[in-house]
Amino acid sequence: MSETINRRIVLAARPQGKPRPEDFRLEEAPVPEPGAGEMLCRTIYLSLDPYMRGRMSEAPSYARPVGLGEVMTGGTVGQVVRSDLDGFAPGDLVVGAGGWQDYALFRQGEARKVDPGQAPVSTALGVLGMPGQTAYVGLREIGKPEPGETLVVAATSGPVGSAVGQIARIRGCRVVGVAGSQAKCDFVAGELGFDACLDHHAADFAERLRAACPDGIDVYWENVGGRVFETVLPLLNDFARVPVCGLIAWYNATELPPGPDRTPLLLRRALVRRLTIRGFIVSDFAPGDFLTDMGQWLRDGRLRYREDVREGLENAPAAFIGLLGGENFGKLLVRVAPDPTR
Amino acid sequence: MSETINRRIVLAARPQGKPRPEDFRLEEAPVPEPGAGEMLCRTIYLSLDPYMRGRMSEAPSYARPVGLGEVMTGGTVGQVVRSDLDGFAPGDLVVGAGGWQDYALFRQGEARKVDPGQAPVSTALGVLGMPGQTAYVGLREIGKPEPGETLVVAATSGPVGSAVGQIARIRGCRVVGVAGSQAKCDFVAGELGFDACLDHHAADFAERLRAACPDGIDVYWENVGGRVFETVLPLLNDFARVPVCGLIAWYNATELPPGPDRTPLLLRRALVRRLTIRGFIVSDFAPGDFLTDMGQWLRDGRLRYREDVREGLENAPAAFIGLLGGENFGKLLVRVAPDPTR
Repeated sequence: MSETINRRIVLAARPQGKPRPEDFRLEEAPVPEPGAGEMLCRTIYLSLDPYMRGRMSEAPSYARPVGLGEVMTGGTVGQVVRSDLDGFAPGDLVVGAGGWQDYALFRQGEARKVDPGQAPVSTALGVLGMPGQTAYVGLREIGKPEPGETLVVAATSGPVGSAVGQIARIRGCRVVGVAGSQAKCDFVAGELGFDACLDHHAADFAERLRAACPDGIDVYWENVGGRVFETVLPLLNDFARVPVCGLIAWYNATELPPGPDRTPLLLRRALVRRLTIRGFIVSDFAPGDFLTDMGQWLRDGRLRYREDVREGLENAPAAFIGLLGGENFGKLLVRVAPDPTR
Repeated sequence: MSETINRRIVLAARPQGKPRPEDFRLEEAPVPEPGAGEMLCRTIYLSLDPYMRGRMSEAPSYARPVGLGEVMTGGTVGQVVRSDLDGFAPGDLVVGAGGWQDYALFRQGEARKVDPGQAPVSTALGVLGMPGQTAYVGLREIGKPEPGETLVVAATSGPVGSAVGQIARIRGCRVVGVAGSQAKCDFVAGELGFDACLDHHAADFAERLRAACPDGIDVYWENVGGRVFETVLPLLNDFARVPVCGLIAWYNATELPPGPDRTPLLLRRALVRRLTIRGFIVSDFAPGDFLTDMGQWLRDGRLRYREDVREGLENAPAAFIGLLGGENFGKLLVRVAPDPTR
């Protein structure tokens, strides 16, 4: 890595279906100079998250799409190189949306400091960052797990799912995870201590899920869509809550699944069982005690996390493409530069 | 009508799809004698409501199905004939769930008095009864209409839809109704004062709905399902609320609609627009100020209603079958005996 060249990955084409490597382009540009009220940060970790698939499309969404030729958006942990920004000095570690590049500029309010004495700085992109906050506020505002209730969460070895399940266990719930491989299930049931974790590829997944939820399901945290949702639907109890946080099974879809149209099953069930199905994104809700609670649970060993760290900015596109296929195992990060705290 | 014979309509067979006349049977039985703590009431008005279709099926729902050979369940306004129940005397007018029959017994808590000086007693089955309360509490708890927002409601000439729209107008909303005929639309836009009302049979219904909702839709009150729901979905604004109150378009369905499976459209929209889709029934929420508010609005002329009264208990099955096809125009009632207050 050069101190004068900024490598950056831009969106070269809007993916049709599954993104291909040629939808991205690695460019080199001069490292920008921070102007008045700006600071320059060197990227250490880049976070790769499913929501980025939406930013690659022009379909209306809650955020502006990335333009063609623009640097891909993404959360980053970086280190301040030069600063004309009050409160930030060279060497400080910060988290912000630096994007898929070696260096990024930030203005007031665009980054906050992270304390490496509290937890590894990479957690600012995971359990103590956007994914963890998503889990925390989505449960607080929509899932509302009560002691003794049963919560099911898919994509459960990922950063949102693993936080959702562990918070719900701390809240006194029975927690059943759903994941895409036996290795992930072993981790979730073993390391994270979920009551059960099921591989959704199993031929008898529906029967296993029913057996794992003898009292039905009170909260289904929707990260996935597709077959898992269909299997969960008949098991939802009266007044169950379904926070809709992600639908990764459908992100690459270019057409609707074959019929029949199952929409009536969903709405009928919503009526008869008086379900609440509610979409949200993390910024819809104030963080509240998120950092206090999660930091405490982390220190107490009640909250664990797993990272899947890939080396080198140039590998971000392949890592992201794999993410949409469930190939990561834990919070997917790209180490863009060495972590000075490790 | 005899004073000694109780005519009653029982469920003769579980309907497959659209109910047929032979799914019902008119029986005669002796008028029951009220025992200790009971009162006998003569039915004056029987309410026919879409939810009854669910009670005819064995599929799991929020209430026990009517058994074969059992009297069809239904709300009634009646007059006390004999009473051993504290607080009720012969001649009193009461509302309760007397069912599809000439005479019914009630115990403590199963009926309440209605005051014919306040409003016509039939309103205890409509605007001041279960349908009106459904509208009132569903808006209060789920729809949460704010001044300046746009609310769309289907089946809007019916008792729930017309109350929903009028309450939302009182709350300061732009209100667009959807109904199944031009005559109904004329009534809703004219008599009820909605901002617009559209016939969903129109070939250009989608374009008309878009034009009638230039600022999008903030609350969609779901009474219907089917094509209306599909047309509304793309117009829902960020943070829109969808109280799911009924799905009459699908009540007689024996199979799912043809594909593709549109479930992803619904859930994706829920995520991107952060929708709340929530099913409920009237008894899920306390009435609160329902009777006070609605009574006042009725007296003020701000709340209107239309009744569609059929004569004779024996005509209840045909009237109910027509209800599921949208043949009624206003709150559907059967006059089982003369109304002594009129």
